[in-house]
Amino acid sequence: MVIKSKKTNKLWKRAEKIIPGGNGLLSKRPDRYAPDIWPTYFKSCSGVNVIALNNKKYIDMAQMGIGSSILGYANDELSDHVNSIIKGGVNCTLNSLEEVSFAEKLLELNPFAGGVKFAKTGGEAMAIAVRIARAHTGKDKVLFSGYHGWTDWYLAANIKSLKSLDNHLLPGLEPTGVPRGLANTVIPFKYDDVEDFERVYSNNKDCGIICIEGARYDYPDQKFLKKIMSVAKKNNLIIICDEITSGWRVTDGGVYKINNFKPDIVVYGKALGGGFAISAVVGKKNIMNSATNTFISSTMWTERVGLAAGLKTVQILTRDKVWKNLIKIGNLISKGWKNLSQKYELDISISNFEPLVTMRFNYKEKNQEIITLFTQEMLHRGYLASTSVYVSNAHTKQIIEEYLKNVDEVFKLISLAIKKNNVKKLLKTSIRSDSFKRLTK
Amino acid sequence: MVIKSKKTNKLWKRAEKIIPGGNGLLSKRPDRYAPDIWPTYFKSCSGVNVIALNNKKYIDMAQMGIGSSILGYANDELSDHVNSIIKGGVNCTLNSLEEVSFAEKLLELNPFAGGVKFAKTGGEAMAIAVRIARAHTGKDKVLFSGYHGWTDWYLAANIKSLKSLDNHLLPGLEPTGVPRGLANTVIPFKYDDVEDFERVYSNNKDCGIICIEGARYDYPDQKFLKKIMSVAKKNNLIIICDEITSGWRVTDGGVYKINNFKPDIVVYGKALGGGFAISAVVGKKNIMNSATNTFISSTMWTERVGLAAGLKTVQILTRDKVWKNLIKIGNLISKGWKNLSQKYELDISISNFEPLVTMRFNYKEKNQEIITLFTQEMLHRGYLASTSVYVSNAHTKQIIEEYLKNVDEVFKLISLAIKKNNVKKLLKTSIRSDSFKRLTK
Repeated sequence: MVIKSKKTNKLWKRAEKIIPGGNGLLSKRPDRYAPDIWPTYFKSCSGVNVIALNNKKYIDMAQMGIGSSILGYANDELSDHVNSIIKGGVNCTLNSLEEVSFAEKLLELNPFAGGVKFAKTGGEAMAIAVRIARAHTGKDKVLFSGYHGWTDWYLAANIKSLKSLDNHLLPGLEPTGVPRGLANTVIPFKYDDVEDFERVYSNNKDCGIICIEGARYDYPDQKFLKKIMSVAKKNNLIIICDEITSGWRVTDGGVYKINNFKPDIVVYGKALGGGFAISAVVGKKNIMNSATNTFISSTMWTERVGLAAGLKTVQILTRDKVWKNLIKIGNLISKGWKNLSQKYELDISISNFEPLVTMRFNYKEKNQEIITLFTQEMLHRGYLASTSVYVSNAHTKQIIEEYLKNVDEVFKLISLAIKKNNVKKLLKTSIRSDSFKRLTK
Repeated sequence: MVIKSKKTNKLWKRAEKIIPGGNGLLSKRPDRYAPDIWPTYFKSCSGVNVIALNNKKYIDMAQMGIGSSILGYANDELSDHVNSIIKGGVNCTLNSLEEVSFAEKLLELNPFAGGVKFAKTGGEAMAIAVRIARAHTGKDKVLFSGYHGWTDWYLAANIKSLKSLDNHLLPGLEPTGVPRGLANTVIPFKYDDVEDFERVYSNNKDCGIICIEGARYDYPDQKFLKKIMSVAKKNNLIIICDEITSGWRVTDGGVYKINNFKPDIVVYGKALGGGFAISAVVGKKNIMNSATNTFISSTMWTERVGLAAGLKTVQILTRDKVWKNLIKIGNLISKGWKNLSQKYELDISISNFEPLVTMRFNYKEKNQEIITLFTQEMLHRGYLASTSVYVSNAHTKQIIEEYLKNVDEVFKLISLAIKKNNVKKLLKTSIRSDSFKRLTK
């Protein structure tokens, strides 16, 4: 029996009244999971364990801070280091030493690059990357695939048609409030679709920049990457590779490294700080130097916590080759899901990017209620769970085995419910939503 | 004798090679102070004391983290609280409790408001405020005065003429890389100049938003504020008051409170987190609700350190009425400067915004070399100093008295040098710069 927490729902309702949307991040809204029973707030977390406001303990087999807590929650080595930094002051009139040493570390790990700019959030870092690329090329137009944040340059894609961004993470992103003068400055093409890219490029030869994600749920196709590189080379376009979601999970840097993909600028965020706020733009020296021709400056970018946490996180990631464990664990989850779906004749597809392993239920309009039931039943068994897992270094083989035992029970239950056509009846919550409209209300 | 630190200058040169401009914030570049002898990097700081990379101890009578470290560096109460938070995990799949309680605290302190959005940096918060205001009014055009950050919406002011922003903090801000479609979306008017505002408004009646700073070096004029309010009311315009620099320094919130100024949206940053990265948009409920019609979302905005640090900082600020001390200390500095300038017949003007007290040397083209000499001689005496002081709660009467004894010596020296016309000869460093071009090189 799922216990509804009155205290939790009351706090979320208070939040929705005073914070438009309830919080600062769509991916942390209960409506994305199981609206009425999702624990929503945490008191503390450690490793993969979360103590919720309702005092229940959950194991996080879902988002791990939406991919930011790559070392696990409250990693001792990282926390102790940051705490020692804080005792020595975080925002001085003078500069933090880590700004230089972290930049040097990132250049060592991205040998194509010669320049680095730091920011605090992914959205900011992408806006900086696009500003620098525009300054360098003198061209405003950007072709892109994938999700790249909330800022004006990106949302402008939806000015002409609200559906332009529908294939790029969340459907229905509203560009209201984005100046109309930005219409036609940013044009989407389909990921992994060579023909669509060629078509879009041939209609927009005045573009100067191509922007794609390193990976999201699947690795990119080699042919697709080769086509982008050849078009970029021939026409002197700048390639920005957004590794905010994908970075540090399968290499000591971006996914671009294993694909022989050669971007001009790479952008990191999320995992970069092990949960602390830090993002970075890493690019070729001549391109990055165009930053000196445009005004890019912010007080909080020089605050020490993010820089120190980022450097320490990257040191741990590279020292322990953390990505190897993430891939191994992701594979265990993937195989487990596959076996269990076959065992119970569930029709699911599984993505191939192991450290953000994702299953898709193939039941069309029934998908959202099925996913909600999965989350509900896993919550009941002590897990934060949905259809994706951001694997962290705190996930172990034992944790996955235990998790899969529970998935076995829940898949069995779901399979039966689908056959009996009574999924909805089993729900003790309203159904989750994936659409922007529903998530903001 | 000023000792040049080879180690410091070597590190800054390394930084300039790999970070365009050398760091993430113009105001922390040594070229703003005394380029060849400024200590540039800190090892640790506490109270008003800074241990630089060259192992020398300085007293910060300059920028205090460019206004962010309002409680003094490494304030024990704040640091201990943040450290305890970090031990409990900072970026969870679930939400931080402080996001709600901090929003409630900000609404309590800004009774006109009904909605809050958090971000990490000032630039972000201003971009969110403008997005929401544009979404609400359906109008793209913004009239503004003052400095409002690095993002596209603001820099667009300089697309048509590079000089549009020259009276708004730093001269020569380059908008290279800002899409040309944004030309004419943002129009400057002069601060405290009723006629200029009326002229600009009458030429831009299609605007929907007016944006000004709460204060910078001087309090705003009452007539100016009244005019803005009457035009806004009559024409249904949204007023955004940027209190990033001015907030928490003279009231328990913005400067707008003491002026009976009635903005629709207030934006806080810098001091809000006591040095930690956090910013907030606080506005009228109906306007803020327009945020739900546009996509505004970022992973790092929900990271707990900023939210917890911000809440704790505001609790300390309001409990101890910190602004009273800041005003008192700022007044001591101001009076000291005035007396000493009269004693040595130095022609300076002093601004009236006490907690960011500022003197202006009135020697035209000689100003920069005089300011550089002031910084040089104060460094020699163990002070980080320039023509502005961001007062913090760690500044005491004794510290100011000791500082003024040193200013006495330095003003005497400067006065003599001006009379002898040998300021330049006394410099052991190249001259500081205030212009964007020089600062980025």
